[in-house]
Amino acid sequence: MEFGSDNQSGCSERVMHALAQANQGASSGYGHDAWTERAVARLREVFETDLEAYFVASGTAANCIALAAMVRPWQLVLAHEQAHVAVDESTAPEFFTGGARTVGVPSDGPRLLAADLQAHLARQGQDMPHNPQAGAVSITQATEAGLVYRVEEVAALTAVAHAHGLPVHMDGARFANAVAALGVSPAAATHRAGVDVMTLGATKNGCMGVETIVVFNRALSAPIQHIRKRSGHLLSKSRFLGAQIHAWLEDGHWLTLARQANRQAQRLSSGMVALPQVGLAWPTEANEVFLRMPRCLAQGLRQAGAHFYDWNPAALPSGHRLGDDEVLVRLVASFATSDADVEALLDCATRWVRR
Amino acid sequence: MEFGSDNQSGCSERVMHALAQANQGASSGYGHDAWTERAVARLREVFETDLEAYFVASGTAANCIALAAMVRPWQLVLAHEQAHVAVDESTAPEFFTGGARTVGVPSDGPRLLAADLQAHLARQGQDMPHNPQAGAVSITQATEAGLVYRVEEVAALTAVAHAHGLPVHMDGARFANAVAALGVSPAAATHRAGVDVMTLGATKNGCMGVETIVVFNRALSAPIQHIRKRSGHLLSKSRFLGAQIHAWLEDGHWLTLARQANRQAQRLSSGMVALPQVGLAWPTEANEVFLRMPRCLAQGLRQAGAHFYDWNPAALPSGHRLGDDEVLVRLVASFATSDADVEALLDCATRWVRR
Amino acid sequence: MEFGSDNQSGCSERVMHALAQANQGASSGYGHDAWTERAVARLREVFETDLEAYFVASGTAANCIALAAMVRPWQLVLAHEQAHVAVDESTAPEFFTGGARTVGVPSDGPRLLAADLQAHLARQGQDMPHNPQAGAVSITQATEAGLVYRVEEVAALTAVAHAHGLPVHMDGARFANAVAALGVSPAAATHRAGVDVMTLGATKNGCMGVETIVVFNRALSAPIQHIRKRSGHLLSKSRFLGAQIHAWLEDGHWLTLARQANRQAQRLSSGMVALPQVGLAWPTEANEVFLRMPRCLAQGLRQAGAHFYDWNPAALPSGHRLGDDEVLVRLVASFATSDADVEALLDCATRWVRR
Amino acid sequence: MEFGSDNQSGCSERVMHALAQANQGASSGYGHDAWTERAVARLREVFETDLEAYFVASGTAANCIALAAMVRPWQLVLAHEQAHVAVDESTAPEFFTGGARTVGVPSDGPRLLAADLQAHLARQGQDMPHNPQAGAVSITQATEAGLVYRVEEVAALTAVAHAHGLPVHMDGARFANAVAALGVSPAAATHRAGVDVMTLGATKNGCMGVETIVVFNRALSAPIQHIRKRSGHLLSKSRFLGAQIHAWLEDGHWLTLARQANRQAQRLSSGMVALPQVGLAWPTEANEVFLRMPRCLAQGLRQAGAHFYDWNPAALPSGHRLGDDEVLVRLVASFATSDADVEALLDCATRWVRR
Repeated sequence: MEFGSDNQSGCSERVMHALAQANQGASSGYGHDAWTERAVARLREVFETDLEAYFVASGTAANCIALAAMVRPWQLVLAHEQAHVAVDESTAPEFFTGGARTVGVPSDGPRLLAADLQAHLARQGQDMPHNPQAGAVSITQATEAGLVYRVEEVAALTAVAHAHGLPVHMDGARFANAVAALGVSPAAATHRAGVDVMTLGATKNGCMGVETIVVFNRALSAPIQHIRKRSGHLLSKSRFLGAQIHAWLEDGHWLTLARQANRQAQRLSSGMVALPQVGLAWPTEANEVFLRMPRCLAQGLRQAGAHFYDWNPAALPSGHRLGDDEVLVRLVASFATSDADVEALLDCATRWVRR
Repeated sequence: MEFGSDNQSGCSERVMHALAQANQGASSGYGHDAWTERAVARLREVFETDLEAYFVASGTAANCIALAAMVRPWQLVLAHEQAHVAVDESTAPEFFTGGARTVGVPSDGPRLLAADLQAHLARQGQDMPHNPQAGAVSITQATEAGLVYRVEEVAALTAVAHAHGLPVHMDGARFANAVAALGVSPAAATHRAGVDVMTLGATKNGCMGVETIVVFNRALSAPIQHIRKRSGHLLSKSRFLGAQIHAWLEDGHWLTLARQANRQAQRLSSGMVALPQVGLAWPTEANEVFLRMPRCLAQGLRQAGAHFYDWNPAALPSGHRLGDDEVLVRLVASFATSDADVEALLDCATRWVRR
Repeated sequence: MEFGSDNQSGCSERVMHALAQANQGASSGYGHDAWTERAVARLREVFETDLEAYFVASGTAANCIALAAMVRPWQLVLAHEQAHVAVDESTAPEFFTGGARTVGVPSDGPRLLAADLQAHLARQGQDMPHNPQAGAVSITQATEAGLVYRVEEVAALTAVAHAHGLPVHMDGARFANAVAALGVSPAAATHRAGVDVMTLGATKNGCMGVETIVVFNRALSAPIQHIRKRSGHLLSKSRFLGAQIHAWLEDGHWLTLARQANRQAQRLSSGMVALPQVGLAWPTEANEVFLRMPRCLAQGLRQAGAHFYDWNPAALPSGHRLGDDEVLVRLVASFATSDADVEALLDCATRWVRR
Repeated sequence: MEFGSDNQSGCSERVMHALAQANQGASSGYGHDAWTERAVARLREVFETDLEAYFVASGTAANCIALAAMVRPWQLVLAHEQAHVAVDESTAPEFFTGGARTVGVPSDGPRLLAADLQAHLARQGQDMPHNPQAGAVSITQATEAGLVYRVEEVAALTAVAHAHGLPVHMDGARFANAVAALGVSPAAATHRAGVDVMTLGATKNGCMGVETIVVFNRALSAPIQHIRKRSGHLLSKSRFLGAQIHAWLEDGHWLTLARQANRQAQRLSSGMVALPQVGLAWPTEANEVFLRMPRCLAQGLRQAGAHFYDWNPAALPSGHRLGDDEVLVRLVASFATSDADVEALLDCATRWVRR
């Protein structure tokens, strides 16, 4: 009963097979290999545009290299207060950008909406060079609360950002889950909605360890090769990154995996909320389920062998507070989550409630 | 009618005289001069402790060198949301600290109180090394809203900070005004209330350009000489920094200057609030007066030759908003503000109201 | 005929098998997994000491995270003028260390010897904080010229370094090849000879992509977890790093692989120098062969399908210059280099000479 | 008998008078003042071009802000091995540039000549992004050895630099002394000879503390205001910087001061070399005299009250070594050095020799 994180699964059979295949023979490295080339070509097909792509081994690296190419050191990166770049990547954004500050933009909900951005920009001091000015905006798709930005929400946000001269970054650590949920094309969800650069996450959704910096706005790409190199993220045996991405994209495999994860999350979600005293903190839109539940239920599930994390109640919308005996927990489904896993958890919870 | 900022005055006669005196003959530099030595000795007397002191030419430098000695690059600097280090120093804190992020701590009022800090720390994720952790706390005395922390407020705040292992920095750009207002000893207002490192501002209060990094907690001082040098703030003709500080502290000159400024601010404040439709945004405690007033009054004063700045209404307490025809303005008195200056402004305002 | 680099081979059968095995089931990540734990335990056995170990995906990351834990930003990293950290990692050392400068120490030969270090330190200005001072020394084992430091050479160098308060880093990108060549224990070649921190390279010698920061001097380890995280090198699916290292160390597999590579390099070397007009730039001690040869021979080999790189003639010892029609080339053997590969190259070269 | 450094003198009467004048009344700050404006206008006249100018309080700041505007963090700054930016400014260049490395270019003499640069660039590896590439070249006028680049030497060097796409920085800490020695126009010595950005030093030559970043190639100026602010070098009472520069340039005062210093250096130089066993390390071209002399003579002079520094013998040209009983010393004359000072030293030395 593993619901701790989608990065606690291994990689899919297809991806592991591709790695074994790529292991045959010798190859140039540092991105000059056939697997990298094919993976980039495939990304161009999937996103229907002449993008540039850079592969790295971690999401923090992908996000922060992207941001470093988008801002100058005296600027700010604006993101939702709960954004991964703001709370889960140490001070990596400052490190990679040479000191551009990540600022959590207040927002009433779990998404950073156009109105939030507009209000924040209006409040900021404009006295340069004293008051630091925004340099880029970053959103997460699906969000840290497991929600999915609608295409029109992205478009509205990028319109405000672009009106202020700010490029937009999308942290797509769970982009596959979002696209699977939205049912729109990857192009519609990104560059056609104004996204300049995205981080396409594959690790949480069936790969061993590869994330892609996808540059739609190619005016921003020049420094990336240098930033990637000097941060130690240009890998010598690059074929193994390219091979993962290629296999993951082929035949829609990435969306097949994401749909499996989303479906199990839906089953978990509907099963759990049917129980008394258990409620959703946010709707379940992708592959994560956020639940308020009695502390003793969470303990009971863990004693029965379930793994999942408590979630910081500070993430709850303003005005929402946990009861004294309540906890906020996150259950994550991955491509590897089986029907049996979900049923086992629901059985457990049901038994606990009836005890 | 100059009320733009206390840094728009020159230096006091005594300070200018001291500079001319220090200009005689040759001297070693880079801090190895008699003026520097005497100034440090005087600081030790004034603060009644065996402090270390480092002189630099700007407040941003003093604040950020201090912070760089207090935190590691993967930590956070916590400060009030309107703190100078957070909104008026570009991304200097990130630059000097190697990327430690400055975070504005939400607070209901214009001071960062112990309860605000406690609440903020309780809300932060504790999962290291993912969630960045606080490394230091910075407060401003007097605050950006012209208010003065009481000694017991400082002590309560430093107690919370120290309980979490966090050293406390005091940005004392207007510390002289605060001490003059509080009527306590400099020692009581700082190290005896738990302050580890302070920035003692002299430029706004009668000097040409000198700020002091005062290290009470000497365990923190080792890197400062290196940080000061590599940031270009170790001046060759250091005697001119030492000479200013020495003259400024001698015979309580610094407090005499501060009292003049505070007194004029009080006269301005009481004169202005006597007018209809003019109100204080915050009480006038040091040398700054923050007023809400009709936009057309502000225009009228400026047309009559008064200089002062609009202030960002985002600084107002939550729930307070300006009316549509109102502006928030800041009037600052300095040691050089004369009775005639104040009367001229008040006359102007009165005439405008009666017109 | 692939002799471009040992990072152009894939991974060994054992390592690939270990990856497939590690792919079973769910696991915690970010270093909290059983594979990481086992790999660290194995390292402690192999190095016969209670070391700390941190796994990352690239050699540049391993080197520079190690150096960042060893120096302060106002110090220097001293290395051989041809060191990988000095010439092949962009400005990564400066990036990770917050601006500590990498300085190439002049040396008469391809190793940085104790006398070179001593002479360099004696030449440096000592006026602090103006003159930047050394903070650490870095050597490469095997060197960039394919040579191996003798244990006593390492010990002599670390003695000079330690006498100046400088910790010593060993870039062991090809440490396996060096140990195989030396025939001493890993412990004797490192911490017993005074090495404080090493980077143990596995990627060039049979792994897919994993390098280890091995900390012998544990006083230096505290910041590493933070530096690794904020540089994006803490991987979520860490089991795949641990699994590689574990399999690579098991049953002496790493040395078996290194001996294969070294043996083929010896065969290449002796075969090539038997040809007229071909000479060794340096003795062949590990798995790299540096040859001076007629430019047209190099062209002929490439036309016949051999892959190898020209090497920068600036690396030649002072006083040594190439003839007008000569080139300096590097041939690298890896664990995957077969007898047939070597014979094919030698045949080719022999035919070309006889033509 | 003060010959330690030209920064050990105070400021000239005219400059001190200008400071007192500028102290009258209130003024805007942060560069928005009439003194700054006038100083920039005067610089444009003196240099006969539409330059941009930024004032700061230290030479390290001026040099490093300039360099930070000229290179990207993954590049190198090339300078003479004895350059102030390379050996006397800690790791400030790395700090300001975000990690671009300062590299000492080997050279046979105390100037960095076109041929030295050409040879160095030819030796560097070109494999991007692995091998770090030069981003700018910096020369010092007058040099650290007290020598003056001829206009045609500057032009030849900038031609090589520009042919490689590298902008050229001139550290003009003693530019006034160099221009006084050369007898050419400031324009001829700088932008007409291809210099892109210079640091114009005034502190060592009669000012209290002000250096100017002079941008001839205005394509490079955009980031400077931001870098100056976030490094704490935008001073509030900026009028005192502008006032110094204005007074210093007026009526050729700066060159009058420099000629005085140069003349005293010439008298010192010719007087000293007339003594037995005393020799020049380099010709005396500006205001610094570098002498080899018996160690006991240096001791004798110091016992008699003379102040001067030993100089690092590593600065001597290759092949030149001090005798066992010799020292290398530097005597610096400033605008404030009097005939009596020089005569006193020469008398002392003569007496010592005859004793």
